[in-house]
Amino acid sequence: VAQPFLQAPRRVLLRLEYEGTDFHGWQRQPALRTVQGELERAIGRALGEAVEVEATSRTDQGVHAAGQAAAFSTGTAIPAARLPLVLNSVLPPDIRIREARDVAPNFRPRLAAAGKLYRYTFSCRQWESVFLRRFTSRVGRPLALGAMREAASELLGEHDFGSFQGASRLPPASSVRRLYLLRVHEEGPLVHLNVVGDGFLYRMVRTIAGTLLEVGLGRRPPSTLPQILAARDRRLAGPTAEARGLCLVKVYFSPGEWLQDPEAAGGACRS
Amino acid sequence: VAQPFLQAPRRVLLRLEYEGTDFHGWQRQPALRTVQGELERAIGRALGEAVEVEATSRTDQGVHAAGQAAAFSTGTAIPAARLPLVLNSVLPPDIRIREARDVAPNFRPRLAAAGKLYRYTFSCRQWESVFLRRFTSRVGRPLALGAMREAASELLGEHDFGSFQGASRLPPASSVRRLYLLRVHEEGPLVHLNVVGDGFLYRMVRTIAGTLLEVGLGRRPPSTLPQILAARDRRLAGPTAEARGLCLVKVYFSPGEWLQDPEAAGGACRS
Repeated sequence: VAQPFLQAPRRVLLRLEYEGTDFHGWQRQPALRTVQGELERAIGRALGEAVEVEATSRTDQGVHAAGQAAAFSTGTAIPAARLPLVLNSVLPPDIRIREARDVAPNFRPRLAAAGKLYRYTFSCRQWESVFLRRFTSRVGRPLALGAMREAASELLGEHDFGSFQGASRLPPASSVRRLYLLRVHEEGPLVHLNVVGDGFLYRMVRTIAGTLLEVGLGRRPPSTLPQILAARDRRLAGPTAEARGLCLVKVYFSPGEWLQDPEAAGGACRS
Repeated sequence: VAQPFLQAPRRVLLRLEYEGTDFHGWQRQPALRTVQGELERAIGRALGEAVEVEATSRTDQGVHAAGQAAAFSTGTAIPAARLPLVLNSVLPPDIRIREARDVAPNFRPRLAAAGKLYRYTFSCRQWESVFLRRFTSRVGRPLALGAMREAASELLGEHDFGSFQGASRLPPASSVRRLYLLRVHEEGPLVHLNVVGDGFLYRMVRTIAGTLLEVGLGRRPPSTLPQILAARDRRLAGPTAEARGLCLVKVYFSPGEWLQDPEAAGGACRS
């Protein structure tokens, strides 16, 4: 059911969730299963037009999302309120549209985002839960939460996070970012790191998680965090924590929105 | 490391969890992947002896367990406290031993069980959560919980549950069973049915769930439950609810133990 563009095309903003386990990350790649690739294929099938979907965050291979935000331009007349149902009927079960709404034709989600909430989850259970194994990183013993909180507090605010930036082909001009929240939250045998910031460098959350893990295991004192930051040298931070523990929980389009969000305080990437 | 039986063999009771998705149920079957089959193979590999594992409940294909109880006889000298670590290192990731302890050589878990807690979970979300899709049955709209609770109360206590028994090759002599608890518990978009009983007929929990679902959807008034029970005719109850929503949460070996168990009150088969 192809629909010609009779006027300036609509722009639609999607809120979506996906389980990253079986995807080679967000970004479309020839011959690999990616979230962008599956989403564009499904929209093409459902709406009868080729679209390009732009995400707020191009999540890495294996990383999950409960609240990714992504936009595309379309000529469809289907009302936004019906689009989740229409698209979910053709999407694979590991991607689901939670919400769709019309936005301005020039809306760019990457530029419009005011902040993002990521959650990294460690499991301190001795055995690896069969139910949570896809969504947590196994530690297998207790963590020193007080030390982790002390370390986390050193990272709050605006810093040059160069020491927490993974190697990438096109590093951004500046590695200065602002962390609004870095909360260490215990939920039974799980330890969540809730991280809100205005933007994140490549692998920054996972490098922070890997560094706080070493603090929690007593391998690195919290007092070393300022030195790590000051050095702007990736080799001084801890290892990159594994992808399956990370979830993009929410994208905020107005500053301070996270302050009203109960998800930023606790919760788990599971509902 | 085969160990000869120098004396009457030890009997070990395991508490284990598994994700039922990729198993053809509990019971060993030639050429099919089953929980019993994988468990016996792993124990054989780790302890160097052939064992037969007896479960309290032979869960069906696709049904999960957070607290299955199963016993086997062994000549190993490995202390019970170390067995979970030893066995988990050779088990596939969808089975995990939570606990092991020594019991009397003639301990039969099926006969010793005083009660069991099952949980059936419906999701009322419009879309099917990518995180919970393996562990919930999707309803996609609100349920009338008051009506479901009224219907549930009709099933409490001792009844002939013949109308809630699936067809099986060897039905038991009596279809009289006692339900101690049938709690309809709301957790955000999820509706859990927590069911404690002294024993369950084949597919009894899923038939109760399918019947209460029809009540919750307004397709069947709660007042019909006594007639369904009285008829002892499977055709009068609702459809069998799908396997993925069901979880064997706990096996109790002393009467009334469930009264002290916080799991019986709420929770979810996910931690």
